Amino acid sequence: MKVCKTVRQIKIEINKAIRAGKSVGFVPTMGYLHDGHLSLIKRARKENDIVVVSIFVNPTQFGEGEDLESYPRDLDRDCRLVEKEGTDFVFAPSAEEMYPHGYMSYVDVEGNITKQLCGKSRVGHFKGVATVVSKLFNIVTPNKAYFGQKDAQQVAVLEQMVRDLNFNIEIVPCPIVREADGLALSSRNTYLSQKERQDALILSKSLIEAEEMIKNGERDAAKIKNFIINNIKTVEYADIDYVEIVNAKTLEDLDQIQGDVLIALAVKIGKPRLIDNIRLEV
Amino acid sequence: MKVCKTVRQIKIEINKAIRAGKSVGFVPTMGYLHDGHLSLIKRARKENDIVVVSIFVNPTQFGEGEDLESYPRDLDRDCRLVEKEGTDFVFAPSAEEMYPHGYMSYVDVEGNITKQLCGKSRVGHFKGVATVVSKLFNIVTPNKAYFGQKDAQQVAVLEQMVRDLNFNIEIVPCPIVREADGLALSSRNTYLSQKERQDALILSKSLIEAEEMIKNGERDAAKIKNFIINNIKTVEYADIDYVEIVNAKTLEDLDQIQGDVLIALAVKIGKPRLIDNIRLEV
Repeated sequence: MKVCKTVRQIKIEINKAIRAGKSVGFVPTMGYLHDGHLSLIKRARKENDIVVVSIFVNPTQFGEGEDLESYPRDLDRDCRLVEKEGTDFVFAPSAEEMYPHGYMSYVDVEGNITKQLCGKSRVGHFKGVATVVSKLFNIVTPNKAYFGQKDAQQVAVLEQMVRDLNFNIEIVPCPIVREADGLALSSRNTYLSQKERQDALILSKSLIEAEEMIKNGERDAAKIKNFIINNIKTVEYADIDYVEIVNAKTLEDLDQIQGDVLIALAVKIGKPRLIDNIRLEV
Repeated sequence: MKVCKTVRQIKIEINKAIRAGKSVGFVPTMGYLHDGHLSLIKRARKENDIVVVSIFVNPTQFGEGEDLESYPRDLDRDCRLVEKEGTDFVFAPSAEEMYPHGYMSYVDVEGNITKQLCGKSRVGHFKGVATVVSKLFNIVTPNKAYFGQKDAQQVAVLEQMVRDLNFNIEIVPCPIVREADGLALSSRNTYLSQKERQDALILSKSLIEAEEMIKNGERDAAKIKNFIINNIKTVEYADIDYVEIVNAKTLEDLDQIQGDVLIALAVKIGKPRLIDNIRLEV
């Protein structure tokens, strides 16, 4: 496995591979990897000749007052983990390498898809995501790129971007990976105290129970939403950012549970803001 | 020569060529081709295995009240012209093919480079240019793309975009092509009455005389600028949008004529708004 820190370096490596007729699978990450990330790499490993993992805590997708500075980082540990999964190249640039002095170009998916859910409280977040992913796509030129369904809105936004801007890349959304007790894996879980870690289970538990209600015939989105909200409120210091039931592709609000349904939530449990969701075809 | 009207069709053709190891030269145009465009195609023909010309009057780069509807179009004539130059593929999509229902992704080069010169009066113009060129770059995946230096600001903006977003594409700026009497070629010249056509010569004439002044040692940008403005004002109905002397790469204003200098102007001669410029190393 080779670790490249510059755009030039990784481009040379990838061009060599492509000229040799190899297909490229790409897993973009912000590092501090967990089994969720590793599941993406495993899938990429199965489906491509070479696997590239990027590790970059992208400053443009953090808003003011967000956790850019404190976001957990451990490149050495990350490299050991991804090497075990058979990764060929790690791209781990500095912020200056990605956004040099005088940088000024941005990609933005306008419209409701970036204004709903996390877009409401994290203004500019998806512009930062679309920009860095566009750059990474141009640098790595993958055939397929793997993203966790945990960031369901990110997947929807990037699918829209790829379609609109005619990228020759297939976005492969991969299932959420959970702890045995249901908590969705996240690099931000490391912020949780033991008690918060326990209380955070209310998120996945509520989603699973909501799914059960739908399987039993409930179709009223407002009822399901209220059920989840009331459930979460049993944790007295849980601070709900949103609980929404939307179409999984367009992120438009649903009154009736029907079609490609996404139930998504963001809740502060103590300091960290956690997200979780469930997607189901009804 | 093959004319493709859909993204799918042109992508299939180009993928075939690339898999056969061929290099791709690309000339994006809005059609109604003149010798300026043909000079780009000739250059592309010399430097690449296959040549792709796009013909698309891009609605997103026209502002309200601009000439989108009346912009001259003649696809059959354009195809005859580019075929003679040895073009392999013409990509001539409809507006719906490029911006289907629900389209919402845009590329924007923020900062002064798009706010100066034409950006002042044509708000949103360069966002439209950056977006359509990003799309075309992803569709055609050229090694080199050829642009006329007549749109000097466009060249500067696209060079910035390619650098920032890490496109694997070389922008090749090509010299302005002029009529024998000095008028810079433009599809919009077709709007000029015979008298306006004659009066429009003041633009190139002023630039050439300004260049002469600089060659004779003048270094005061304000003096040169005033000279050009006063010259143009001798055509009583000429309506000056701007005359600017800037650094050709950053488009920052220059007080002293030094370095990579661009003298650029936009002037309405009757109805059409004409642009012209001269670039010189001092």
